[in-house]
Formats: sequence, structure tokens, C-alpha cells
Amino acid sequence: MALIVQKFGGSSVANAERVMNVARIITDTYKEGNSVVVVVSAQGDTTDDLIEKANEINPKASKREMDMLLTSGEQISIALLAMAIESLGYPVISLLGWQAGFSTNSSYGSARIHKVNPERLQSEIDKKKIVIVAGFQGLNKYDDLTTLGRGGSDTSAVAIAAALHADRCQIFTDVSGVYTADPRKVANTQKLSDITYDEMLEFATLGAQVLNNRSVEMAKKYNVELEVLSSLVREPGTIVREVATMEKMLIRGVTKDTDIARISVVGMKDIPGNAFKMFSRLAQKGINIDVILQSVGRDGTKDISFTCAASHAEEAVEILSDIFSMEGAVVASDTTVAKVSIVGAGMQSHSGTASKMFGALYEAGINISMISTSEITISVLIDKELADKAVSAVHAAFFG
Amino acid sequence: MALIVQKFGGSSVANAERVMNVARIITDTYKEGNSVVVVVSAQGDTTDDLIEKANEINPKASKREMDMLLTSGEQISIALLAMAIESLGYPVISLLGWQAGFSTNSSYGSARIHKVNPERLQSEIDKKKIVIVAGFQGLNKYDDLTTLGRGGSDTSAVAIAAALHADRCQIFTDVSGVYTADPRKVANTQKLSDITYDEMLEFATLGAQVLNNRSVEMAKKYNVELEVLSSLVREPGTIVREVATMEKMLIRGVTKDTDIARISVVGMKDIPGNAFKMFSRLAQKGINIDVILQSVGRDGTKDISFTCAASHAEEAVEILSDIFSMEGAVVASDTTVAKVSIVGAGMQSHSGTASKMFGALYEAGINISMISTSEITISVLIDKELADKAVSAVHAAFFG
Repeated sequence: MALIVQKFGGSSVANAERVMNVARIITDTYKEGNSVVVVVSAQGDTTDDLIEKANEINPKASKREMDMLLTSGEQISIALLAMAIESLGYPVISLLGWQAGFSTNSSYGSARIHKVNPERLQSEIDKKKIVIVAGFQGLNKYDDLTTLGRGGSDTSAVAIAAALHADRCQIFTDVSGVYTADPRKVANTQKLSDITYDEMLEFATLGAQVLNNRSVEMAKKYNVELEVLSSLVREPGTIVREVATMEKMLIRGVTKDTDIARISVVGMKDIPGNAFKMFSRLAQKGINIDVILQSVGRDGTKDISFTCAASHAEEAVEILSDIFSMEGAVVASDTTVAKVSIVGAGMQSHSGTASKMFGALYEAGINISMISTSEITISVLIDKELADKAVSAVHAAFFG
Repeated sequence: MALIVQKFGGSSVANAERVMNVARIITDTYKEGNSVVVVVSAQGDTTDDLIEKANEINPKASKREMDMLLTSGEQISIALLAMAIESLGYPVISLLGWQAGFSTNSSYGSARIHKVNPERLQSEIDKKKIVIVAGFQGLNKYDDLTTLGRGGSDTSAVAIAAALHADRCQIFTDVSGVYTADPRKVANTQKLSDITYDEMLEFATLGAQVLNNRSVEMAKKYNVELEVLSSLVREPGTIVREVATMEKMLIRGVTKDTDIARISVVGMKDIPGNAFKMFSRLAQKGINIDVILQSVGRDGTKDISFTCAASHAEEAVEILSDIFSMEGAVVASDTTVAKVSIVGAGMQSHSGTASKMFGALYEAGINISMISTSEITISVLIDKELADKAVSAVHAAFFG
């Protein structure tokens, strides 16, 4: 007799057969006596198809009209999913983002949720209806449709779970949970039964795209218990919550991120304020910085290297060249690197984790070019071509 | 410096090229100094494609969810049309039915408009924006989406024109106006420069599907001046208004309706109340009756024949058999008939119109099986196979 929020992504509802499969997962949950609210994304490639249609007419269309266009995708999928549940004989109603009470700011294309007014949701739940909500969308103060940006349906689900004080928010994906490493590439991986929000955030940030980061942050903030599980295989997934139970586990997993670039500024004048100037300008342009390394160069200069998303590399080089080339510094980017990381709150209380990781890489003959650590992660920068080999070696050292 | 409402159907915006064509018609009107509000339908086959998707999942889906599904079609077309206008450099905003103030009753699938609150529309017009509105849709008192039923976009356009007291409502179609007969089938047809609401209603009812009937009725009620014109050929169309100017024209045109059936009940007892019983039962079932003919039969019985839409024939026969077969009457339907009509307010003040029509049919060797007249129409029932020949013969007699 719990209140459960379930979220299904676009591939889970890509065609009639999958919509029926999802409908059965939902009604099975409802049959057990639970109240069920479902958040669903647009079917399969719908969003990409709509973007293509727009580009054909106007590649520089306003974001306001793009949101008007794209929100139709979820509208189609909620209606079809509701029809599927009707066909199984259960009471159901579909609601658009605004009908479900989502109010957002006006950043079309990447709106942030101001609040979810759960009045209508609660009233439909009270009528014993299964409620199907369009993910990824809301309404701004001008009564115009907005989208939350890519991956926004996860956030929609968590926001509803928070507003309704749901017992659990289940995120259905094409993997059956969070693993110690990517099971498609690494041998002997284990599915984690639970994991903390912070660990999950590191996993997401580090390139294991199981859950959207914003949704995990929101789940942490409102203490929403998440479960990551498969829509194809019926088995328990991985629970994400404040305190995970597997204390004895040193680390939770090994991940890689190959979609990064290393930017280096060599030969900056060693004067105060240069680093501030550098990173504040990048922040203004929305370029997120990850690992930073500073070293003393020759002749009273210094060198700074950092990593960022590969897609931002070109812009970062331009910005930094504008600032520093006059003083003789050389700005360069390198996209042949990858970041491999271990994640786990357990490592805080154990010594030797870092040396175990570095030892495994050394034995595999892999050179480390940068190192970065946080309370629950250790990351190294290595040659991109060796990324999979590195993940396997490190995984074997800890889980092998 | 007028306020003009323009309506474009699904075929007018079926692909990117046609969307751009429509965008140019709109911006040309705007460039001349007019305020422009545009109502648009779903692109091409979108609605049918969505219905097919629904049928694949649940052929008996609720009408509420069908409306949730189908309203996405216009949402896509308003966004794309707005983007096209943006690309031409004009200020524009798209609005869904509910954003444009359409409130309806809750008859999902065939909702009636309660009212149009023009507040948002007027505010966007005041900002000098071209406003693109999703036709065919509204919102009921539960804040749920509704559709106005097929052809509803015409009604949406007229409702907006009425609410905004627009100077004209232009309905763009694939024909360039209203003709004295179907130009694809009859020689020497003439485009009418204007026509009255009543004449237009008769044209629509009689099978010339240029304008949706509800929209003409609403235009008449609120005195909205309509213009029917082509989105492909730039030339003046046909104006529909209270008083048409071409007084000397005896009739406006010749139309046919081949989608009808003649139902006959032969050998009813000649007692009071039988006709009432018959037509009230049919009305209860939503079967609209057209031409009615009653004659005295043999041995104190009477016969009644009438016409209705061919799609209702089977149901009508069933209903009437239930009532009258016990008393020995024979109920039959005949779908090999067609109705050919002349329409025109001018015929009221001219004698000889009927005899001219019947004479033309006689000379063409066409037998008349039923006759019906109203103030502005004369209709005859003939063999369906001779319908085109009959229209040509009558048209030649009046417009020859």
C-alpha cells in the first residue's frame, strides 16, 4: 500500500508492443495495492524527428517555438500509454506537465522547475486512478510551455515523488541497475543493491549515464528514494538513498569518461588573479571545468591544465587565447584523453585505495597523466585508447 | 489596416515547402499593415497517423485520451508555421487552443465551444505579433483538452473572428472559391464573387464540401464575413456574407450528393402517430432525415420514403423494421440514388425555376423519383449513375 512513482524513457515506449509491456509493469504494481504515478518520455526517436522537421524549416527557430514543438512528443506517449492501460481494464488518466502542476522558469529548452503543485495529481490518485504524466515539460508564468532539457523526464519523476512524498521513485531503463563497471565491456561486474546519492552523482558525472544528474541532486535534496531498474527484465534494481548498506564494500565501481578534452595553458605569467580570470571567464560562458592541475613552469611562468567536455574544447581554447596569448602563453587542447575513476564512500575510511588503483594501472602498462581526488572518488587521466583496458584492470583489482 | 483571421487546412501545411508558402501568404497580409491571426490544422495525414497508432494499441480507447493524442497534431503544425514566419523575419507567436482562450463543453471528440476569451490573443496582437492558433481544440472545465470534431478548424477560425470582431475570416482551401458547380466535372462553371450564408449552408449540406457547416452557421450568427480562397493561387475568392450583391443571378449553383440512401416503408397502417413514431425514433439515434415523401398505399395503408446519409441506412432499416414489420409493412433501403440540387436566394422571386430544371433533366433523359423544395433550393432524387450528367445538364440550362 505504497505510493510509487515510475519513470519510463523513450526506448521503453518506442512501439506498440513496448507500450503494452510498460502498461503491464504499471498495472502489476497497481494490482498489488499501490498508488501509481507514471512519468514517460517521448517515444523512441520522436524528439529527434521533430527537431529534424524544425531544422528543415528554420535551423535558427526560437527556443520558445522549439518547446512548443517538442512537448507534443510526450503528449503522444502519455495518451498511448493511457490507452494501453485502459485496454487492460484499469482506471487511468494522462496529464500534461502543466496539468500535473509543473511550473518552471522561462529558460526555454532548459527550464528549471519552480514547484510542482500536486493538487490535480492527488485528486486523481484519490479517485484510484493510475496517473500518466508527460515528463520533460512544464509551464512558465506567461502560460507558455517549457522543456526541462534532455534527460528532464528523470527530474520530472523525482519532482513528482518529492511533491507527493512518494515512498519510492523507480527509474526504468535498459539496464537492470547500477553495476561496478559497464557489464558490456568488463568481466565479472556486480550489480549494486544500493548506493548513496553522492556515489550516484559521481557515477553520473564520471560518464556512467544511468541517471540524469539533476534528478539525483533533487532526490538527495528532498530525500526521495530512487530505484534504477530494467523495463525488460523483471528483477530488483539498485536503490539510491542517503545511507547505503554495503559498508564493507570499499568502492562501488569503476567508470570512464571518454567525452572529455584536456586544455592546457603553458607559460602564463605567474601573477595573482590569472587563475581567477581564467575560470571566471569560462564559467560565464557555461563551460564546466573538471580536474585542474597547476604546475610551476620555467622562467617565472606557470602552467595550468584542466579537463572539460570535449564539445566545449574549441570554445575554451578561443576564450583562453583571447586572454593569454598576448602575454606569450600557449593554449592547446587534447581530446585523446579519457578519465577513469573509482567511486565509493567506503574509501574514506580505508587507506591504500589509491595505491591499489595506481598499482593496477602500472601492471597493465598504463601511464597516468593527471590525478584528481575527492572524498569519494579517485580519477586519473590516461590515453583514451587504453580506457577500456584501464577500467578492466582497476575493476579486477577491486572486484576480481 | 484591418484585423484578418486566416485559416489553413492540413494539406496547405503538409510539408516544409507548403509551410513556407503559407508563411509567405501570412506575412504578405501582415506587411500590408493588417493584424493577422492564423488558425491551422494538423499537417497532412498526421491526424490519421495518430488514430492508426491508437488503434494499434487500443481500438476502443476513451475519447478523452483520443483528444489528448490528437491535439498534439495541431501543436506540431503551429510551432512549425511560427518557425517559418520567424525565418522570414516577422514577429510571431504560436498558441494552443487553451492558450488562445477556447473553452468548450466536455463532449470529447466533438466538443462545442462555450466561449473564446480573447485576452491573450488581443495582448499578442497589441504587441504587433502574428498569432498562430491551433485549430480544432479547446479546454473543458476540468482543464482537460478537447477536440471540436472533424472540420473543427474552420469553426475555430470563425469563433476567433467573432471574439475579436475581425474584419474578415479567410478560409484557405485547395479550391479558389465557390463555383456554380464542381469545375472538375462540369464545363463552363463560374466562380461566385459572393454568396449569402444561407446559400453557403445549402451548398455544404448538399455535398459541396467547401466549408464546414458549423462554421458557416457560427459566421451567420455573429455576422463574420468569410472568404473562401486558394492557398496555391493568389486571387480573390468567394465572399460569404448576409447580403450578396449578385441580385440578378437566379441561382448560385448546382450541386449533387451521392452519399445518400433512400429508405422506404411500404404498407404501414394508416393510423395517426405512425409518422411521428418513425421520425422521433430516428432522431433519438442521431439519424438526420432529408427529403420526405408520403403517399397513400393500397387497402388503407400508406407508404413513406425519405433520404438519409448512406452510412445511416443500415441502422435506419433496423430501427424501422423493429417498429413496423409486425404490422406487415416492408422496410427497404436503396443506395443507388443521388440528390441533385439548385441553390439560390434569387429563385424566391422568380417563377419558372423549377420547370427550367425539370425540363433540362427531361431533355437529358433523366427520370426524377423524388422532389423536394425549400425557399432557396430545389432538389431531385435520381439514379446515382446519372448524377454527373444531371448536374451538367442543369448547369448548362442556367449558366449555359
